[in-house]
Amino acid sequence: MTYCVAMRLSSGLVFVSDSRTNAGVDHISTFRKLHVFHQSDERVLVIQSAGNLATTQSILSLLHRRSLDATVPNLLNVESMYDAASLLGETVREVIARDSGDNQGGMTDFSCNLLLGGQIKGEGLRLFHVYPQGNFIEATHDTPYFQVGESKYGKPIIDRVLTYDTALEQAMQCALISMDSTLRSNLSVGLPLDVMTYPKDSFSDAQQYRITEDHPYFAMIRKGWGEGLLSIFAQLPPLKLEK
Amino acid sequence: MTYCVAMRLSSGLVFVSDSRTNAGVDHISTFRKLHVFHQSDERVLVIQSAGNLATTQSILSLLHRRSLDATVPNLLNVESMYDAASLLGETVREVIARDSGDNQGGMTDFSCNLLLGGQIKGEGLRLFHVYPQGNFIEATHDTPYFQVGESKYGKPIIDRVLTYDTALEQAMQCALISMDSTLRSNLSVGLPLDVMTYPKDSFSDAQQYRITEDHPYFAMIRKGWGEGLLSIFAQLPPLKLEK
Repeated sequence: MTYCVAMRLSSGLVFVSDSRTNAGVDHISTFRKLHVFHQSDERVLVIQSAGNLATTQSILSLLHRRSLDATVPNLLNVESMYDAASLLGETVREVIARDSGDNQGGMTDFSCNLLLGGQIKGEGLRLFHVYPQGNFIEATHDTPYFQVGESKYGKPIIDRVLTYDTALEQAMQCALISMDSTLRSNLSVGLPLDVMTYPKDSFSDAQQYRITEDHPYFAMIRKGWGEGLLSIFAQLPPLKLEK
Repeated sequence: MTYCVAMRLSSGLVFVSDSRTNAGVDHISTFRKLHVFHQSDERVLVIQSAGNLATTQSILSLLHRRSLDATVPNLLNVESMYDAASLLGETVREVIARDSGDNQGGMTDFSCNLLLGGQIKGEGLRLFHVYPQGNFIEATHDTPYFQVGESKYGKPIIDRVLTYDTALEQAMQCALISMDSTLRSNLSVGLPLDVMTYPKDSFSDAQQYRITEDHPYFAMIRKGWGEGLLSIFAQLPPLKLEK
């Protein structure tokens, strides 16, 4: 399984992905699920992936290969984020059709869900959720974040804290706490994390980090959050139920 | 959908159920999902239900009707909670087999998940999760709670707070916060709530309450919890990510 969350805020984008993949419970591996396409001072595109690993790796391989060929539409030459989402959707359909084509898979689930966020010069920040069918939705002012994978454990804290105008730093904290809640409740989501902050109009992919088990800041907010929860809990008014 | 949680602790049992049912998004109703079988000073059995409403109502109707006939095994005369779980499992199989028998349902999902908790004189507290197949698992010291229905949103807070030795009052608070997190993130779970506390060896079903939107205590802890979360969040150490 997987948990990825992406946020599109007034001041930038935030991305957090785990890195655990599993086929059953006894074939567990670590794969990066956050992928960046960067053209200096002109565009930054970030793709996060959940679902069938063969499908998502093929999609990424094809996107990378094609981005080297300026004669075909690719992520480094499309004119807008909308065109990038559309191209990603097409690639999803292409790979799933190829792999499931002769139906040899039987019950195999070839599907995947992808998040695509970024900025291309001339546009604002945009964030899309691309479905296994290749169609997609875009984040708005009212709904500034998307999740893919094992999303439910980590949703309540985001719903409570995040708005479109949340600062990037707080949004990253919120995403990390959301990830922590998921890590605690679901074994199929695991460290290390790949995280990235993209400040609006920076056209830079510099703020990428990998967070491992012993990352001091992550350990500190996990601890601070856990202890804080227990302390609010202890301060709740005494139970008073009446008919 | 539904969210029910039950806890088996050293000092008693805690049950919290929502009451929303839906078939699609435009057929939403309120049905009680917490049902009590009580024999004064001798046994208290509580059943919580999630899944196909026709199935769960039929199961409850049959259990109630049979509990009036002392010549058949029923929830008021079985000797142990294990026998009660076994009887409940049989009834699940009976109803699902009957309703899905001639396969007229096609793709219909007739299944349900049930929680059964309580105490029969001569035994300690016991709590079971009965699956659609009629088999069941029992809560232990290590895993003192079960959930059915839309369980993921409300799981992280229970995992952080609850242990086998948590006091009943705190456990009820924890269950209500877990429910609050679920209510906020999923429209298919809704008020009013049916809640019950069963103190060990009381053999009483007196501590049952219905919590509606304007219940003062529930409103107070929802508010206290929400504000508390935001205040811990504001106190987290400033973001510091490094390569």
